[in-house]
Amino acid sequence: MHKVPVGVLGASGYAGRELCGLIARHPGLELAFASANEQRGQRARIGAAEVTYVATEDAPLNSAEIVFTALPHGAAATWVENARATGARVVDLSSDFRPGAGNAAAAAAPYGLTELMREHIPGAGIVANPGCYPTAVLIAIAPLLTEGWILPGATINVSAASGVTGAGYSPRPDLLFAEVAEDFRAYSVGNQHRHIAEMRAVSSQLGGKDNDILFTPHLLPVARGILATITVPIKQHVDEPLSLWRECYQGEPFIEIADQPPSLRDVVRRNVVRLSVVPASNVRQPTLIIVSAIDNLVKGAAGQALQNANVLLGLNEQEGLPA
Amino acid sequence: MHKVPVGVLGASGYAGRELCGLIARHPGLELAFASANEQRGQRARIGAAEVTYVATEDAPLNSAEIVFTALPHGAAATWVENARATGARVVDLSSDFRPGAGNAAAAAAPYGLTELMREHIPGAGIVANPGCYPTAVLIAIAPLLTEGWILPGATINVSAASGVTGAGYSPRPDLLFAEVAEDFRAYSVGNQHRHIAEMRAVSSQLGGKDNDILFTPHLLPVARGILATITVPIKQHVDEPLSLWRECYQGEPFIEIADQPPSLRDVVRRNVVRLSVVPASNVRQPTLIIVSAIDNLVKGAAGQALQNANVLLGLNEQEGLPA
Amino acid sequence: MHKVPVGVLGASGYAGRELCGLIARHPGLELAFASANEQRGQRARIGAAEVTYVATEDAPLNSAEIVFTALPHGAAATWVENARATGARVVDLSSDFRPGAGNAAAAAAPYGLTELMREHIPGAGIVANPGCYPTAVLIAIAPLLTEGWILPGATINVSAASGVTGAGYSPRPDLLFAEVAEDFRAYSVGNQHRHIAEMRAVSSQLGGKDNDILFTPHLLPVARGILATITVPIKQHVDEPLSLWRECYQGEPFIEIADQPPSLRDVVRRNVVRLSVVPASNVRQPTLIIVSAIDNLVKGAAGQALQNANVLLGLNEQEGLPA
Amino acid sequence: MHKVPVGVLGASGYAGRELCGLIARHPGLELAFASANEQRGQRARIGAAEVTYVATEDAPLNSAEIVFTALPHGAAATWVENARATGARVVDLSSDFRPGAGNAAAAAAPYGLTELMREHIPGAGIVANPGCYPTAVLIAIAPLLTEGWILPGATINVSAASGVTGAGYSPRPDLLFAEVAEDFRAYSVGNQHRHIAEMRAVSSQLGGKDNDILFTPHLLPVARGILATITVPIKQHVDEPLSLWRECYQGEPFIEIADQPPSLRDVVRRNVVRLSVVPASNVRQPTLIIVSAIDNLVKGAAGQALQNANVLLGLNEQEGLPA
Repeated sequence: MHKVPVGVLGASGYAGRELCGLIARHPGLELAFASANEQRGQRARIGAAEVTYVATEDAPLNSAEIVFTALPHGAAATWVENARATGARVVDLSSDFRPGAGNAAAAAAPYGLTELMREHIPGAGIVANPGCYPTAVLIAIAPLLTEGWILPGATINVSAASGVTGAGYSPRPDLLFAEVAEDFRAYSVGNQHRHIAEMRAVSSQLGGKDNDILFTPHLLPVARGILATITVPIKQHVDEPLSLWRECYQGEPFIEIADQPPSLRDVVRRNVVRLSVVPASNVRQPTLIIVSAIDNLVKGAAGQALQNANVLLGLNEQEGLPA
Repeated sequence: MHKVPVGVLGASGYAGRELCGLIARHPGLELAFASANEQRGQRARIGAAEVTYVATEDAPLNSAEIVFTALPHGAAATWVENARATGARVVDLSSDFRPGAGNAAAAAAPYGLTELMREHIPGAGIVANPGCYPTAVLIAIAPLLTEGWILPGATINVSAASGVTGAGYSPRPDLLFAEVAEDFRAYSVGNQHRHIAEMRAVSSQLGGKDNDILFTPHLLPVARGILATITVPIKQHVDEPLSLWRECYQGEPFIEIADQPPSLRDVVRRNVVRLSVVPASNVRQPTLIIVSAIDNLVKGAAGQALQNANVLLGLNEQEGLPA
Repeated sequence: MHKVPVGVLGASGYAGRELCGLIARHPGLELAFASANEQRGQRARIGAAEVTYVATEDAPLNSAEIVFTALPHGAAATWVENARATGARVVDLSSDFRPGAGNAAAAAAPYGLTELMREHIPGAGIVANPGCYPTAVLIAIAPLLTEGWILPGATINVSAASGVTGAGYSPRPDLLFAEVAEDFRAYSVGNQHRHIAEMRAVSSQLGGKDNDILFTPHLLPVARGILATITVPIKQHVDEPLSLWRECYQGEPFIEIADQPPSLRDVVRRNVVRLSVVPASNVRQPTLIIVSAIDNLVKGAAGQALQNANVLLGLNEQEGLPA
Repeated sequence: MHKVPVGVLGASGYAGRELCGLIARHPGLELAFASANEQRGQRARIGAAEVTYVATEDAPLNSAEIVFTALPHGAAATWVENARATGARVVDLSSDFRPGAGNAAAAAAPYGLTELMREHIPGAGIVANPGCYPTAVLIAIAPLLTEGWILPGATINVSAASGVTGAGYSPRPDLLFAEVAEDFRAYSVGNQHRHIAEMRAVSSQLGGKDNDILFTPHLLPVARGILATITVPIKQHVDEPLSLWRECYQGEPFIEIADQPPSLRDVVRRNVVRLSVVPASNVRQPTLIIVSAIDNLVKGAAGQALQNANVLLGLNEQEGLPA
């Protein structure tokens, strides 16, 4: 079988390495290059894959049909353009082309939240792969937004927690084992996280112009996974809200609507969003609590990037992805 | 120096053991007995303490001036009465005498959230020691309630996470290391946790009759600590809200108002509530985010129980407590 | 493609569940039944698999060509015989039929340390699947034994550490998260572990009659993995000992001889033994230090059991196994 | 009460911070300065202490009666001399003055393994504070060495594991949480660890000239603690070896001889060595297995340094130390 050559720019971080590992197991793709400036010339074993890193400027961009850019936010835009110039199509894992990024070129790049935006992807030159938190949150609230269940003017309140790979493979003292173990903390407190613009922009498109999003992320002493606990005031009480999500996501192989709230253990190393919804007891204002879980490196980054690549290439969308 | 004899009923669980360890280091107390039915006759080393467990029914209740009951909820009430019958005063760590417990006798037992209820404690026969989550939450929101800052009718939204000792020393399969490590999950989802009645009852007393409390607890892969992230819609925007808390808790040795949101690491093994408050950006509805942290076994259980015992005995309230 | 029906007795423990997960991904096998007395009637999701447990006594043994027994030591022997009576062949994960078990019937059951004993397996009715520690140790020392490098009379010293799944899915208080996290301890100290008889019996067969084995296991605060650090006094100094292992295990897909000592991270979720060997500096007695790592649930239990089943069935030995 | 002023050079690493925390709780000492070049001018909260860091070259060395140097190996020697030049006495936590360091000046500095070398300390200008691994190992084997129990020519085999604070507060990628959690690995394999020279030199002084030491350290996914598992061939079998250690260390407040092998949990945050000894079963060569545990930051570094300072100052040796 002919394999499509693909390349990864920024392949030494957690998302880039995850991507190389998934590509190695994908029956229809082969890795044309993997770049990492500091590790240039080094070989690395990544799951089933063995790669030899090249410097990003030495990457043979024209040898790949799809280029994945897993470079730092801000640094990605230039390399996305370089890759486009060779004719490759690009799945960009940075925030540079996402809604809310304030990048004029972003308008032309469909937002790769595959289940919601699938039809815009096939003809695209650049796909803006979603952030990890927005993936967990937007898949969870989209049915409420599109169905108009949310109380007008109400605030969508998100408390989310992420494993430390979400902070990247950077040797910061506060990410050392002895600092993170047995600890838990909030960060970007005060609704200041960079992902809020992305969530607000997409939420508005889906019908939530009228609703604030209040988002507090936390750092968990685990390697992988995001759990988002979302409370949403709704217009009227609903006894069994889950049927709304079951209908909206019927037939979606990577969305799991569960009877019980998910835990990280249910989703780690899998390309799924798993969620459940419970109506609040003991309150006057009808409110739903949604708990949504993903693996930040798979459905929240590399897995969804590959899912988008499958759509770009006209392959089976599930190909090579751990369900 | 004369030491006051005190006893612990239910001394083999996490809270009971913590209490024995603290008593051993308290310069004014001595341990008269420690009961644990399954471990009767066994010696155990608990920090600096060495105890020999007796069966609860064999505990010489009349040898203690203060009896701490760290028995399961429901089982405590009887033993509280037994201890009272010998003339001992009781600090009860169960929920049996707390506000919202539906126990008629509870009305006579002051609620031992020491900083807020201090004046009711000295003459009491029974002190109802607060739950761990309510301690972290009520200390955090009390200034807002008493000052009337909260938007009428608004929901106080609490997302909290606790270390596994909060679930007690019970050999449940879901608390095994291999199940909890690398995991994170919500529980009692839908505003169904037993501590909600306690928080609502006390919040109402403090002025929050009009406000719902929505509370979602989570289980953390750490041994100790609770972090509560609380969002509260307020009547009008405040630039520097922290001064309210600094005033309310001025001079309190066990309340720390911090410039930066606390993490578990800041409070573990200490008898403090540490909190910070940040106004929300990027929302239309003025809202404050409070992050509050405690050690669930110290300020959330054994430490606060000892703080209440110090008040009952007329000792220095800080005596023997790790600040 | 026709799939071979196989069954699992004892499918709710860690090894049994791992086996169900691997069988679900194996292209040539299908799960005929999975038994678990306490969970009878319950459905469980295990990786890609969904199983409904039956009681062990209700398992349709005659529907399976291969029966895997993952029952407690001592309880397995009877069910192995029951399965044999229906004509099924059995891979037994307990210690009941292993060398050193003192079971007369064990003589007829080949020891399924596949790489060393492969030729005895195809015609067997019962394969005794090796223990986790013996797998890590015996693969590591076999070349030294068969080549006669070890100093006569010398002691083979093994210090090994295992993740907590090695202790099984049993709700023991000492296996609770809050007891295991941030801890590390030796157990069965004094050369008293049950696996020693198995290691000695096989080591003797391989040429080590003259050598004592001293084995101290430790409990690690991790879910999975075994690391064994083995020191072996040898007859004469060798500068580059690794070539011996490379030769002995040439072409073995599941044995990795590495330049650097392995860590658990290198082997977790994979059916491999990975090892390295370094000569000791700063000692008078020439000595080799071997570090050997496996996943206790894969190559140390379920993976190797499946590898043996592949041999029994004449399938490709690597089929369905994560390399 | 007059408090003795002491200073800490290198107070931002794990050992230096631990030292500042212990000094703050010591009733007879006060912190005159704490240096940390990169944090100069910053305030830090360390347990009960609040310090403002100065640059090392700005530290008022002459204001302290005792200077603790917790600087990197190699960098300490110069500052030890600078402090001595002001008349201060020095407890050096680096390896620069320890036995086996190859430093000519080291001969004049007593080795601060307090329990074994106590009498040499009072008049010293410089005390060489022992390494963490040597503390755990030498206290464990000293009775065997001085009593002549060890088989002549035999190898003392040490397999030890340390929490990550042993590697220091350095932002190395391999010490990030996501790299260390769920992992375990050996390092300096081949008897190449820098602490071996120290252990050999002291062991020789104690009577072990004839015995090799083979030492393999491992990195544990815990913050604190060292567990050393030591096997020692002995001249003849001993049924109850523990009495030897009980005699040798009778009356020592910081040495605990236990019936059961210790775990990290028993010693963390305490200034003790806890150990147990078991004779090996199932071997021909009589052999003892010693398991020894310490907190690497307390008895293995800062606590022992303070213990030595107590001796230097003629204070109660236990003053200010967590037993």
